[in-house]
Formats: sequence, structure tokens, C-alpha cells
Amino acid sequence: MRLSRYFLPVLKENPAEAQIVSHRLMLRAGMIKQQSAGIYSWLPLGFKVLRKIEDIVHDEQIRAGHIPMQMPTLQTADLWRESGRYDAYGPEMLRMKDRHDRDMLFSPTAEEMFTDVFRAHVSSYKDLPLTLYQIQWKFRDEVRPRFGVMRGREFYMKDGYNFDLTKEDALHAYNRHLVSYLRTYERMGLQAIPMRADSGPIGGDDTHEFLVLAETGESEVFYDAQITDLTFGDREIDYDDRAACQGVLEEFTSRYARTDETHDEAAFNEVPEERRRVARGIEVGQIFYFGTKYSEAMNATVVDSEGNKVPVHMGSHGIGVSRLLGAIIEANHDDNGIIWPEGVTPFHVGIVNLKQGDEEADAACEALYKEFEAAGLEPLYDDRKERAGGKFATMDLIGLPWRITVGPRGLKNGVVELTSRRTGESVELSPADAVAKIKEIYAKHPDPKGA
Amino acid sequence: MRLSRYFLPVLKENPAEAQIVSHRLMLRAGMIKQQSAGIYSWLPLGFKVLRKIEDIVHDEQIRAGHIPMQMPTLQTADLWRESGRYDAYGPEMLRMKDRHDRDMLFSPTAEEMFTDVFRAHVSSYKDLPLTLYQIQWKFRDEVRPRFGVMRGREFYMKDGYNFDLTKEDALHAYNRHLVSYLRTYERMGLQAIPMRADSGPIGGDDTHEFLVLAETGESEVFYDAQITDLTFGDREIDYDDRAACQGVLEEFTSRYARTDETHDEAAFNEVPEERRRVARGIEVGQIFYFGTKYSEAMNATVVDSEGNKVPVHMGSHGIGVSRLLGAIIEANHDDNGIIWPEGVTPFHVGIVNLKQGDEEADAACEALYKEFEAAGLEPLYDDRKERAGGKFATMDLIGLPWRITVGPRGLKNGVVELTSRRTGESVELSPADAVAKIKEIYAKHPDPKGA
Repeated sequence: MRLSRYFLPVLKENPAEAQIVSHRLMLRAGMIKQQSAGIYSWLPLGFKVLRKIEDIVHDEQIRAGHIPMQMPTLQTADLWRESGRYDAYGPEMLRMKDRHDRDMLFSPTAEEMFTDVFRAHVSSYKDLPLTLYQIQWKFRDEVRPRFGVMRGREFYMKDGYNFDLTKEDALHAYNRHLVSYLRTYERMGLQAIPMRADSGPIGGDDTHEFLVLAETGESEVFYDAQITDLTFGDREIDYDDRAACQGVLEEFTSRYARTDETHDEAAFNEVPEERRRVARGIEVGQIFYFGTKYSEAMNATVVDSEGNKVPVHMGSHGIGVSRLLGAIIEANHDDNGIIWPEGVTPFHVGIVNLKQGDEEADAACEALYKEFEAAGLEPLYDDRKERAGGKFATMDLIGLPWRITVGPRGLKNGVVELTSRRTGESVELSPADAVAKIKEIYAKHPDPKGA
Repeated sequence: MRLSRYFLPVLKENPAEAQIVSHRLMLRAGMIKQQSAGIYSWLPLGFKVLRKIEDIVHDEQIRAGHIPMQMPTLQTADLWRESGRYDAYGPEMLRMKDRHDRDMLFSPTAEEMFTDVFRAHVSSYKDLPLTLYQIQWKFRDEVRPRFGVMRGREFYMKDGYNFDLTKEDALHAYNRHLVSYLRTYERMGLQAIPMRADSGPIGGDDTHEFLVLAETGESEVFYDAQITDLTFGDREIDYDDRAACQGVLEEFTSRYARTDETHDEAAFNEVPEERRRVARGIEVGQIFYFGTKYSEAMNATVVDSEGNKVPVHMGSHGIGVSRLLGAIIEANHDDNGIIWPEGVTPFHVGIVNLKQGDEEADAACEALYKEFEAAGLEPLYDDRKERAGGKFATMDLIGLPWRITVGPRGLKNGVVELTSRRTGESVELSPADAVAKIKEIYAKHPDPKGA
């Protein structure tokens, strides 16, 4: 993309309404625009990252054997009356009437509708196990939306639902989700720690939240420092291997890690003092096993191998897709702006032309641009007639992890400058070597394929 | 994908509620499930095609230089009061109040919100031309939703908006849209004819609808038969070349082609009688130039090169993404089911194992499966223990354009059978040749990249 043709409305001033750094930086980098309290337009740069995160979530869900589909945003009240949640859900549910005076609502979650699809089409244990999921816009009418996309009212969320014959099968689905979530967050450059959580209005006993440590986190968290040494890394996993999935669960959840909602002071005190940590965290996902709560209420049964009709065991599993942008920025920024992890960066590399209009510099930038495109990488080329300082400030603000600076002086010596946004370190090298280096970096961070 | 692990709830019976073939086939092929009048869940197969169509639209819009972003589905009434459309829009607009009693609505279109984003961030003619677009869920509360996704209430739509300094610039944007739409539909295997249309509540003079000829079309259409000989084909187009884009407009719109709304009997009668056609069509897109209607009402101005504040010239341009599934099926089916064009098929090839459990047949199918995956193609492997007849019926119903049938008898002679869904013709060839043939076919229909 050539910046002269892009729509990147960066702000010079710090917006007064933003209380936390990710909100401030998303506004300043021209990623979002608030349309009303807790409701945002996703400007081109913001949409690009949102889509990339969505695609990573799809990739990892599909890898785990979960099947993507999509529910409407609007639902009728009837299904929610069946489960008993229509009245229980309270004022966070946005309700309306259509022109025929039927009660409708904007989906805040979709247990009822997935259960409805399941019961309409599945009747035998032979069709299990089954995990369906969607990534779709949701609405929760928060009293006091704040922190930008971190606590918006309209938000983008992945919600998945497993349907299994037995509790044991459903717990394997739970473990598959845990593993796939660990992979998902790591691919985005995030460490998200599974913590034992409170199940809240969805109900159920087995539930973990995934928390990213950040000073601005809403939740107070208590954990054993050993847990931050764990990474899933690039190990292989067979999602059909129950023992392997259970092993990962045990590895990542056996140490003390809880939010304030489930914190147990006595248990925490058993952790050696030097390893006890109290910090703040941002919730970026949650997994639940809730058994037959919805299947019984909504009559979602299958016939088992002995001919008995039994309610299926279910769980639901969410990732806050739009919220993740905020969480990633909270964990990856400095005073000059965002620092995108390679896995989610909106453009792979920035090209800054120090002297737009200089024949040699223009030609060198164009050549780099074409080479990156040919390699399947997306460069953002700042081809505007602006001062170098302004171009650097924009690149730093929007946070592309790698920048190539091209100027007449360097070109005389056959070099351009390659700069890491994270470390600030620069090296001079030939344009060909710069391209090779960028290709090598992104070979380890392939673009997601999506659904 | 292995069918034993997929969720493909095909129906044996014809659903009584479906009046037209696309609706019937989408229900039977397990692509959608109605949740309430005009509101559908997109089951896995339907979602897969929806996403592919969405990605093709993105590819062609980005190629034309248009910039993707995304608006929220919910908007406040204020913007619509500014444009004067809040009261004018009538009962098709779904209105609601949030918990703080503010008037909200589910976006039926987004001229106001895009104009709002523009005026908030653009103030100079130097930032023009600019075309922003989104693909997002919309809602129109039709009195009598029908024909499945063809006339639903919640629907998925691409809507794009151009902002230009002059009428001339805006008409070039109009032409760019026309060209990109021609490419988009052809890539989906559709012929969509631009017809002079009525501008309706959006306003403006220059507008064309794109219509797919189909017996079940809602609109009566009148056209010169010569128009159906036109194809855009694989010619190159430079979207910055005004004359080239204007030339395409003239080529595709100079012959008589109108819907009943703008039909002019006298003009039609000037077409030689043997070339006059009266048929029915499905609207799958529309482009508008409406000048300064919204920019004046909403104060969207730029400073021009002489320092004057002038309202921008705008247009809006839509493609009915979810409706396209219906249109494609109306134009591509037979008595046995859907026949997907290669550009939009949910899976590239079906593999039918005639004797699941036979060691050789299973191994041959697995080998084919892996080879397709390695080639970046997605096979759907029917690995269920079902009769061959049932497997063929399912494959025919869901409409994958190519099927490979594998059985012990053929394998003894070293062959499998490759069948075209469209022609029904089969050839026997070695598994390696079958893979090569499929790869060759899809080299001409690369998967879209999306946004």
C-alpha cells in the first residue's frame, strides 16, 4: 500500500477521552473512531489488524477440528425464554421489537441458538463429537463502556460450543480448547495465562479465563511466578490424543493462578513466598464446561448406543477478538506508539523514502515495494512529500515491526537502513539483503489463512 | 475435510416453506437454517461459500484501489436526523432504545456514517480521491421476507462510498465500480448485466443495477440480446486510466437494458425485433452517483486548490453478498442439486470412497486427500460407511464441481473416476493424473485472498 493512497488519519494530539494507552494509541494511529459510547468504526488500519486476528483464531480452531459457521446477530426472544435467560439476562441485553411487534434481541452470546441448531439436526451419538463455532458481532449494553475496544458495547467475539455424549468427552473438548487457545495467543505474540475462574451467569464448574498481564488490567490476579516461564512453543499436538491434551492442561493449570473472583489466600500462601505474584490482567478468553444445563432445558438429546435418549454434555468457549487489539497494544508499546508482534502486524514492513521526488530514491523504493509484493508480503510505502521526521513519527506510532529507510546518501553506498521498531536498532545493508532478511523473519510468522 | 467429522445436515425431503429452487437447495444442502422470518443461521457449508464470495468482493475492491474498513451494525439516530433520513426511512428501519434511553438503529445502509468518518478526518482536496467500503451485516425489516437469503431481513452486504472533488472525478469512481463489479461477478461464474435503474430513496441520477438473468428474478427486465455476448474476460485494466474505465462503461451500457422501473417502450422498440428480450432478473448490486446530497446535508467539505470550502461529490455502491449465494444457485443447478462454479465452490473436489473399510480403497483416498491438501486445495472426502448411491446423491446435492470416485475394481486397473458435476461426464485415469487435472482446473480459479 502506498500511503498517499491510503486512509490513515493519525492524530497529533492525545485524545482527552482515552484513559488507557491502548485506547489512546488506537485513536491516534487512526485505527478506530468512536461513533457512540462503546461503539466504534474500524478504520482501515484497525480493520486490517482485526481481520488478521480473526483469521488466526479461525486457523487455530480449524486445526483443532472445530467447525466454523455463523449465526445472525439478531435473535428472537423465544429461544431465550426456553433456556430461562430472557428475563434473567438483565439490562445488558439489548432488546427491541420488529415491525410485527415480535420481541427480538441483539445476541450477547449464543448458547441457545447453537443448541437449537444442534437439536434440529443431530439425533445420534454417531454424529458426536461435534464442536461448532462462530466469530460474530455481539452486543452487551454495559452501563459504563470504557477503555476503547477493551470494554465496548458492540464487540467481535469468537464463541464455540461443544456437543458430546459424555462428561469425559466434553472435558476432552475443554482441553482441546485450552490447547488451541494457548497456540492462538502465542501466535499473536501474547502470553495469556489460564486462571481458574468463576462461571458467572453461564453456569458450570470447570472454567478457566485466559489473562494477559498488564498494568491496566481490570482484574487483580494472583499467581505462581513459575507460570510465566511456560510456553507452548512450536511443539506438535494431536488434538485426538486425549492424554496429550490432558497433559497440556495439567502443565498449564497445576500452578496457582487465579483472579480476585476465585482467589484463595490459604492456597496462595502455599506457594513459596519468592514466587508469589500479585498483578493485574486483561481477560482475553474463557472456556467453560457446563454439562447438560442447556441441553436439558432445550431438549438437545441424542440416542446413545443402547437406544437411550440422553442430553448432550456441552461447553462454551470464547475469545474476545476485538478486545485482543487492546490487549496486544497494552502489552506491546512504548512512548512513541504501538509495537506490533510480527504475527498480527497490519503491514509486514514500512518503507520510508527520505527524499520523495529524487529519481534514485523513488526507483529504489518502488523496486523494494515490488519485491515485497512478489514475495507475498505487504509493505506500507510512505511516498508522501513530508519531512523525514514526520514519516518516522508516523511509522513509530502505527508500530510496524520493521522499517526500511531509503535515501540518496545511502544509495550512493549501495545501502538502505533496516530498523527494528522494538529495539530501535538499525543496520545498513543492500536492498537485496534487506528483502531477504524480512522474508526470513516472516517465514516464521506466516499470514493466517482464515475460514 | 473428512465428511465423518464435518457438520453437513442434508435434508432428504423438500422443505415445504421454500418457494424457489435456491432456497430449497440451500436448506436441503445444509447451508442455512431459518431462525425467524428472514433471519438465517449460516451452517458450515453455507458459511464457507459466503466467506469465499466475501473474499472475492474484497479482492476486486482492493484491486480497484478501494479501502476496506468496517462500521458497527448499530448506530445512533443522531446522524440519521442530520441527513433527514431518520424519519423518512420508514418501518424498514429497525429501531431500538439502549439502557440510557438513547435512540439507536440497526444499520440498513451507511451513507451517514461513512460521511461522518470522512468529515471528521479529511479536510483537503489533497486527500482525494478516496473510496472507503465495508462488508457488514445490515438489517431491513421487510414486511414479507421470502425466497431465503434472496430477500432476508438480516443480510450481508458490501457497501462502498466514494469521496471526490468534482463530479468528473466522482464519475470516474462510478466507472471504477462498474468495472470492478463486472470482474467480481464473472469471477463467481455469473453474468450480471448493468441496467439503468431507478435511484429510489438514496437519490441521484446516475445509477445502474446489476442483474443476473433467472426465471425466479423479482424484476422484469428488457434488453438487447447483444448484451449477453459481452464478457469482461481476463483483459487487463488500469483503474487509474479514466478513458479505459469510461470505455468499459460505454461498452457494457450502450445497448438497451432496463428493469421495469425505468423501462421505456419507445426506446426498446428501436432495438431490432429479433434482438429484443423480455426476461426476469435478480438484482445483485447497484452503483450510484448522487453528488453532494449527503455532503451538503452533513457538511462534508474539503478546501480546494484555491482555498474554497466545497462539498465533496459522492456515490455509493453495493453488492448483495449473502443474496449472491441465492443468485448463483438460481443460475447454476439441476434436478439433483447445486452446481457450483469453480470460483466459489466450498470444496475444490469431492472424494467418494465406494468401499470404506477396504484397505486399498481407503489408502488410495487418503493419498489423494493428502496430495490435494499439499497443493493448497480443499477436498471433501466422504469417508462414511454409506452406500455409494447415498454418497453420490449427497455430492450431487451440495454441488462440488468435480468428484473423484475410488473403488477396489478401478484400483485393480490403476484408475479412479473423475466426474464433472456440470456435464455428468466421467473419465477413468490414474490417481496422479486426476490430481494433475484438478490442479490445472483451479490454477485458473485461484482462491481469493480477502481483506
